[in-house]
Amino acid sequence: MNAPPTITDHLVLFMPSGKRGRFPKGTTVLDAARQLGVYVESVCGGRATCGRCQIEVQEGHFAKHKISSRADHISPVGAKEARYAEKRSLPAGRRLSCSATIQGDLVIDVPQDAVVNAQVVRKDAGERLIERYPAVQLCYVEVDEPDMHKPLGDLDRLKAALSREWGFAHLEVDTHLLALVQPILREGRWAVTAAIHHDDDAGDAARIIALWPGLKNEAYGIACDIGSTTIAMHLVSLLSGRVVASAGASNPQIRFGEDLMSRVSYVMMNPDGRQAMTRAVRQEVTRLIDKVAAEGGIDRADILDSVFVGNPIMHHLFLGIDPTELGGAPFALAVSGAVKARASDMRLNLNPGARLYMLPCIAGHVGADAAAVTLSEGPHRQDEMMLIVDVGTNAEIVLGNRSRLVAASSPTGPAFEGAEISCGQRAAPGAIERVRIDRETLEPRFRVIGSTLWSDEPGFAEAVGTTGVTGICGSGIIEVIAEMYLSGIISEDGVIDGTLAQKSPRILAEGRTYSYLLRDGEPRITITQNDVRAIQLAKAALYAGIRLLMEKQGVETVDAIRFAGAFGSFIDPTYAMVLGLIPDCELEKVSAVGNAAGTGARMALLNRNHRREIEETVRRIEKVETALEPRFQEHFVHAMALPNKLDPFPRLARQITLPPRKVLGGDAGAEGPRRRSREERAARRRR
Amino acid sequence: MNAPPTITDHLVLFMPSGKRGRFPKGTTVLDAARQLGVYVESVCGGRATCGRCQIEVQEGHFAKHKISSRADHISPVGAKEARYAEKRSLPAGRRLSCSATIQGDLVIDVPQDAVVNAQVVRKDAGERLIERYPAVQLCYVEVDEPDMHKPLGDLDRLKAALSREWGFAHLEVDTHLLALVQPILREGRWAVTAAIHHDDDAGDAARIIALWPGLKNEAYGIACDIGSTTIAMHLVSLLSGRVVASAGASNPQIRFGEDLMSRVSYVMMNPDGRQAMTRAVRQEVTRLIDKVAAEGGIDRADILDSVFVGNPIMHHLFLGIDPTELGGAPFALAVSGAVKARASDMRLNLNPGARLYMLPCIAGHVGADAAAVTLSEGPHRQDEMMLIVDVGTNAEIVLGNRSRLVAASSPTGPAFEGAEISCGQRAAPGAIERVRIDRETLEPRFRVIGSTLWSDEPGFAEAVGTTGVTGICGSGIIEVIAEMYLSGIISEDGVIDGTLAQKSPRILAEGRTYSYLLRDGEPRITITQNDVRAIQLAKAALYAGIRLLMEKQGVETVDAIRFAGAFGSFIDPTYAMVLGLIPDCELEKVSAVGNAAGTGARMALLNRNHRREIEETVRRIEKVETALEPRFQEHFVHAMALPNKLDPFPRLARQITLPPRKVLGGDAGAEGPRRRSREERAARRRR
Repeated sequence: MNAPPTITDHLVLFMPSGKRGRFPKGTTVLDAARQLGVYVESVCGGRATCGRCQIEVQEGHFAKHKISSRADHISPVGAKEARYAEKRSLPAGRRLSCSATIQGDLVIDVPQDAVVNAQVVRKDAGERLIERYPAVQLCYVEVDEPDMHKPLGDLDRLKAALSREWGFAHLEVDTHLLALVQPILREGRWAVTAAIHHDDDAGDAARIIALWPGLKNEAYGIACDIGSTTIAMHLVSLLSGRVVASAGASNPQIRFGEDLMSRVSYVMMNPDGRQAMTRAVRQEVTRLIDKVAAEGGIDRADILDSVFVGNPIMHHLFLGIDPTELGGAPFALAVSGAVKARASDMRLNLNPGARLYMLPCIAGHVGADAAAVTLSEGPHRQDEMMLIVDVGTNAEIVLGNRSRLVAASSPTGPAFEGAEISCGQRAAPGAIERVRIDRETLEPRFRVIGSTLWSDEPGFAEAVGTTGVTGICGSGIIEVIAEMYLSGIISEDGVIDGTLAQKSPRILAEGRTYSYLLRDGEPRITITQNDVRAIQLAKAALYAGIRLLMEKQGVETVDAIRFAGAFGSFIDPTYAMVLGLIPDCELEKVSAVGNAAGTGARMALLNRNHRREIEETVRRIEKVETALEPRFQEHFVHAMALPNKLDPFPRLARQITLPPRKVLGGDAGAEGPRRRSREERAARRRR
Repeated sequence: MNAPPTITDHLVLFMPSGKRGRFPKGTTVLDAARQLGVYVESVCGGRATCGRCQIEVQEGHFAKHKISSRADHISPVGAKEARYAEKRSLPAGRRLSCSATIQGDLVIDVPQDAVVNAQVVRKDAGERLIERYPAVQLCYVEVDEPDMHKPLGDLDRLKAALSREWGFAHLEVDTHLLALVQPILREGRWAVTAAIHHDDDAGDAARIIALWPGLKNEAYGIACDIGSTTIAMHLVSLLSGRVVASAGASNPQIRFGEDLMSRVSYVMMNPDGRQAMTRAVRQEVTRLIDKVAAEGGIDRADILDSVFVGNPIMHHLFLGIDPTELGGAPFALAVSGAVKARASDMRLNLNPGARLYMLPCIAGHVGADAAAVTLSEGPHRQDEMMLIVDVGTNAEIVLGNRSRLVAASSPTGPAFEGAEISCGQRAAPGAIERVRIDRETLEPRFRVIGSTLWSDEPGFAEAVGTTGVTGICGSGIIEVIAEMYLSGIISEDGVIDGTLAQKSPRILAEGRTYSYLLRDGEPRITITQNDVRAIQLAKAALYAGIRLLMEKQGVETVDAIRFAGAFGSFIDPTYAMVLGLIPDCELEKVSAVGNAAGTGARMALLNRNHRREIEETVRRIEKVETALEPRFQEHFVHAMALPNKLDPFPRLARQITLPPRKVLGGDAGAEGPRRRSREERAARRRR
C-alpha cells in the first residue's frame, strides 16, 4: 500500500484539508484519504453499506495545484455502490469513497454533512461546519465464530477483528460490556458495531465503550454550556456533525444564590450546600438531555459522548468539587486541565459507556467557557490582534493572536446585567433595551424587549400592553448612559449636569445629585447619579483589564473585538465604545458571537484535534491576575472617564460626533478603586 | 546521569536480578538501580523517610563477576539515614539506597522483604519470595502551592510534581478523586502520597487512583482463588510482599448446585439465576475481605489492588457473565484474555480506586486458575518436561517446557472427590483418607481425617469418638482401590475377584458382582464393583488427556509432575501412579503444590511483569480439545486397565512390586467411553 509513488501514480488533492498525495490507479479514495490522514467517516469499514464515506469530485483545471480533475478520473459506479444508492439514495454527484477508485488526477471534496437516513436539513446560516474527527467512532466488524481448536473468548475475537479491520493495536473494554459481548455477538450473527473511544494518541488506550448487533449507523453527542444563569445544550450527530436539537433552561442553582459569590457562600454556610447544588445542576442537565433526545426523536442510549463548558465555579460544582477555594485568594482551581471522565460519573442518563470531556479552565476566574470561546473564535489561529470579551458578572478577557495570548478577568460586578441599578432588571419582556435622547430637547424614546416599536411610534402602548414597561436591562443601561453623555447630560467624568434642569424637566434634583427621568408613569424609570457611577465602575474595571492585557502585548490598538455571551449579543458596539467599555476599533470589526462557548463545545465534541488544540492553547495563554498588577489601578482611574481620561478613540470619532470635553464638579472619579479594600474587591469580583 | 561509563566508574551488580552496570563515584544506589531497571521500592522519593529502599552490601570477592565488594565501597551513614535508623530502626547491615552512594565496586542485595513498621515475621517455609514490581505504587511528593501568576489547578500541580519527581509523563486521574485533591493537599500542607496504577507500558496510561495527606507508607492487595467449592484469599503488603493474613470459605454458590454443571443448569433454568450466583460469590468475597482486613489489623481502604483466579465458570459468574455458553460445544468463553477493571465494578469494598486483575483463561474448560498454577510452577521458565494436573470435577492439564506448552481438560467427573462412590464423601473429619490392605489376610487398616492413628492402633476408637467414621474421601478411594489391586483383590481390568470370597469374609457377593468390606459396623463401608468402575472411568479420562498431550509433545515420559489443588495435596503420588492416574515418573519428582493457584495470583499481584508473562504464555499455549481428538478414545480404553493396558511404568516398578497380570471375566473395559453418547460426556465434563 505504501510503495514509493511513481510517475504513473495520480495526484489527488483533498479539500477542505488541502492534503495531497500520489496514488496508484485503482486505489480506493477512502484508502488514499486514510494514508494522508484525511478523516473520512466510515462505519461499515468499506462494505458500501453505511453510506458515511461520501465524497464529491471537483471538476475543472486547478492551475494552482496543477491538477485537471475530471469526473472520468474516478471509477464508474460499481455494483455494491449502485445497490447502496438504490436502497438508501445518494445525493447527485456524491460517491462512496470506499468503492470509488482513483483513475486519474483528482480534486476530492469531503463534505462535512453526509447525512444518512434523514432529510437533509437546510443549514442554519449561523451554524458552523466543523471538520469531524470525533473521539467516539462507530466500527462495524464481522467476528470469527468460536473455534474449539483456538478457544479465544468472544471479546478477544471481537478485539482481533477490530484490530485487523480498523487497526486498533491495543483495545481495552468497558467493564459493563463484559457480560454483553456474548449475547450481542449472537444476536448480530457475528456482525456487530462497536463504539470505540480514542481521545489521545499518546496516552489512553482506545476502548470499546458500546456494542450493537449488526450495523449501527448513527451516534450522538451533546455539547453543553453551563452558565450561572442559563444552561444551553446541543444534541449533535457524531457522524454527520448535524445539530439535531437544541434546548436551554435556567440554572436551577439560582435558588441558592443569584450570582456566583452567593452560591459559594451557600456552600460555605450549608453542610450539604455543595451536594445540593451539584445535584441541582446535574438534574437540570439530565432534564435537558431528555428534552433534546425527545426533540431529536432519538434514544438517550445513542448518546455516546458529551462536552461541557462553564465558568470555574459552575465547572467545579458540576464535577462535584467544592468551589470554596475559588471564593478567595489565591483563587485556586481544584483542577485546571481538561477533565476526561464517564458521563455516568456525573450521573448523566446517556449510554452507560458514554464519555464526558470538559475543556480546560484558563485561570481561577477564566473558565472552560472562556476556553470554548477562544477555541471557537480562534485568536491563536490568525494574525490579527483579537480581543475576546465575555461580559458576565465577571468579565473574562482574552487578547492575542497566533504568536501570543494573554488572559485576565475583571471584576465588573453585576451592573451590566441590570443589578445595582435603581430601575435595573434582567433582560426579559418589558425591559427597556434601546434608548435614544434628542440632542436638543433631551427627550428620550426607547424600545422594550418584546416589541419592535419605539415608544414614540403609534401603537406602542398596545404593543407592550401585556408586559408593560417594567425596568431597564443591561443593554438599555449602556445606551441610556451613552446617549446621556452624547447629549451632554453627563460630563466626561460621569456627573449629571444639574444646570440642565433649567432647560429640561427630565433633569431632576435628588439631594446633592441629579437624575434623568427616562419614563414617567408607573413605574417611573430614572437614571440616578448612582446608576451612572455603577456603570462607570463596571466599565472602568472591564477596560482596565483589557488595557492591562494590551500593555502586556505591547499594543495601543486591537484589530478585532468579539463579544461573547448573551449580554454581548444585545449591546450595540457603538455605544459600548462610546462609554469606553472596549478600546477603539473599527466598528465593523466588532461583533457579537453569542453562542461562541456552545460552538467551542461542539468543536471539541466533533473533533478531538480541537481538544488537543485548546489544551495546548490554554497551556500557552499567559494569565494575568489583575489584582496583583499595580498598573490596573491606574488604568481603572483613567477608565472612569467617558470614554477615557487618556486614551483617544480616533476610529470611533470618525463615525460618531463625540461631545466636547466637559468637566463638572462633584465626586466623580474620586471613588476610585483605591478607596475600596482588597477584600471588598475580591468579594465583588466573584459575583 | 547517563554519561557513557568511564574507566573510573565503579562496577555494581544487583542481586537477585543479576543486572550490572558502571556508575560514577557518588551515585546513589537507588539511582543506579533505576538506571538498570532494577525495581527497588521507594515511597518517599529519596527523602530517607519511608525506609522502603533498603539494600545490603554483599561483602567478598566475587571472582565470577570480577568484583571485590567491600563495606567501605559504600558511603558511610549520613545524617538523614541516621535519623531514619534512630526513629524507625534499620536491621543490621541494611542501608537506605536513596542515601547510600557508590564509592567502589559493589555487589548489592535487594531484599524482597523490607518490612517497615512491623515485626519481621519469620517466613513460612512454603511461602515464596516474589520479586516486586507491583501495578500500584505509592509516590510521595511535595506539591507547589497555588500561585496566582500561574493559575494551574491543584490536581495539575500534583501531576506536575509526580512527573518531575517520579517521571510519569502522562497521568490520568480517577474521577472520584477530583473533589478530594484540594482538601487532601491542604490537609497534608502540600505534601501528599499518591497511589499510581500503571499496569501496561504499552497502552493504558498511568493513573492516580488514591491520595493521602503526608507520607503513606503501606498499601495492600488481595489475591483470591475462587474455586467451585472453596474461596481462598491472601492479604498481601504491596510494599514488602509479606502475606499479612489469609482466609478461606465455602463457595456459597454450592446452595445452587454442588458441581459446575448444575450451576450452569441453575442459570439456564432460573431467570435471576446468574445474578443470584454472582451476588452470592461477590458477597462471600466481600466477607473474606473484611475477615483478612480484620485479621491483618488494617483498613479495607488501604487495599488498592486485587487479583482473582478461578475456573472459567467461576470466572464468568464472578464477573457477572452468563456461563451458559460454557455448558455446551463449542464451549465459548465470553472473554479469555486477562480482565482489567475496578474492584468497585464487582462491588468489592476496597479503596474506591482499587483495581482488579483476572488472569487469562486458557480455554473453555481450562481457566484462570490453571493459568495461575502455570505461572506459579513455571513450566515455561525451564527445560524439563513438566506435567501440571489440577484435579477437580474436571481435570485441567498443562504439559511442556520453555519451548512449547500444550493444555487440555479431561472429563474426570466427581468420583475423585468422593461423589458417585457408594460410601464416598467430601474430605472432612470422619472420612477415611488412608488405607492399607494386608497382602495375605486381605484385612484392611485405615486412618480418618482428624486423627493420626491407624484403625488397628490402640486408642483409635476414642480418637475418632466425636466425628465417628463417616465415609471415604477422594484420597481414601484412590488408596483403597490401589491397595485392592496390589493385594490381588481386583484384576488389572478392575474386576473384583469373587473367588477370594472363599479366602476372606471381606469379599462379599452382591448380585452378579462382588464388593470389598472396608469397615464393618455403623456405617458399614464397602467398595463395590461400581465404585471401582467409577474410579476407573475418572482416572482413564485423566490419563487419556495427559497421554494425548504427551503425544502432542512427542514424549513417552515426563520429567516432573505437579499436583495442584486440594485433592492433589492429600493423595499419595505412589498410589496415584499405581492406579495409572498419572504417567510413570520418578516418584521424588512428583509433588503436590496445593495452593499453586493462590501463589500464581500473588505473583500477578506483586509483579506486573508476571501479568505480562502469563498473558504471553497463555497466548502461546496450544489448546487441545479432547472431545475433538479421535486418539482420546483409544487412550481412554487402554487407561481403563490398572495401571494401563499398554504403557509400562518402569520407574514405578523399581519402587513398588506390581502384581502379576491377572485377567478376570466380567464386563470390565467393555463400558468404555464409546458406549456413552457425546452429550452424556459433554454433560459429565462440565461437572
